[in-house]
Amino acid sequence: MTPDNLPSASPSLARLVQELNRLPGIGPKSAQRLAYHIIRLPAEEAYALAEAVTAVKQNTVYCGECQNLAEATPCAICADSRRTRSIICVVEEPMDVLALERTRSFRGLYHVLHGVISPINGVGPDQLKLRELLSRLSEPDVTELVVATNPTLEGEATAMYIRRHLARDDLRVTRLARGLPVGGSLEYTDETTLSRAFQGRQDL
Amino acid sequence: MTPDNLPSASPSLARLVQELNRLPGIGPKSAQRLAYHIIRLPAEEAYALAEAVTAVKQNTVYCGECQNLAEATPCAICADSRRTRSIICVVEEPMDVLALERTRSFRGLYHVLHGVISPINGVGPDQLKLRELLSRLSEPDVTELVVATNPTLEGEATAMYIRRHLARDDLRVTRLARGLPVGGSLEYTDETTLSRAFQGRQDL
Repeated sequence: MTPDNLPSASPSLARLVQELNRLPGIGPKSAQRLAYHIIRLPAEEAYALAEAVTAVKQNTVYCGECQNLAEATPCAICADSRRTRSIICVVEEPMDVLALERTRSFRGLYHVLHGVISPINGVGPDQLKLRELLSRLSEPDVTELVVATNPTLEGEATAMYIRRHLARDDLRVTRLARGLPVGGSLEYTDETTLSRAFQGRQDL
Repeated sequence: MTPDNLPSASPSLARLVQELNRLPGIGPKSAQRLAYHIIRLPAEEAYALAEAVTAVKQNTVYCGECQNLAEATPCAICADSRRTRSIICVVEEPMDVLALERTRSFRGLYHVLHGVISPINGVGPDQLKLRELLSRLSEPDVTELVVATNPTLEGEATAMYIRRHLARDDLRVTRLARGLPVGGSLEYTDETTLSRAFQGRQDL
């Protein structure tokens, strides 16, 4: 939506709609609705939102070890002495770290690639944080690499690339199990997943 | 989503997710996705967004005449001498003014009620800008009132209230036509709309 579509009565409203419309998943209609909502917020709530946007840009850095977004380097996870330093879990995006942390079942370290190898989108190994991963793998205490890229074509290709080109021979390289989602049903599971679940069947 | 679910590594990220999550239609997942998008924006774009939020709060006022959100009172529409001052179009929300202005088919003035009469939601006539409308109707140059509240139960009730309690006898009070949406089909039109379209049929 261009500012022309909006009444000249309120250029700052038009500007806000335009800025919100740039965000992913927010079309012109939602941008308008959000803008009107923001106008009606108590001033302190609106300022809190604006400050949160500014603060996140000012305070966020990449952790020099795991490459995750953080407020300090090393980040709180890398700096946590209670975590196992022998297992590194490789993920595509910072949000994947959140998802895994929520499970509370992994107490090792992470490495965020910030993408996947995707020739169609022009993303090669050099655009990912693979060089940083390689240098971490040269440390002898690392014994296992869990490649937790997504179970997609690109995620699998990236996992294969890591195993072939980066991993030392004595390093255990694993991949998250593929199978039926908990709470799911066989009937609605796609063939590939079902076939993987069958192959990966475990003793009861 | 509470900040507890997010890694302590980035409190400002957690705060932004929380602020975004308060906006209507933005759940925890979208808030997270938006926050990561904002982190990766070039700094000037993120600051532009924050400034737009702040500016809209600082610059927006209610027009003393039509009660629309604007940057000055009277607003650009009310102050426009080329517009007919004899017809006032009553709408529920500021966004309705935008929608009508986009049609370029109305050149009169507006009046924004900021809601509809809705006993279920505890909104009575006193919570709407009806007193302001009444005082505008006392001016003798106003000859027609187009009540463009939504064609919903509440919208209709509000329209009826306006006609009964506010309009002078010599004032023409109209309502937007109900009928088939342009580009729509009879097959997928609900019965009430179709019946309204039939009642309101016009000579070809």
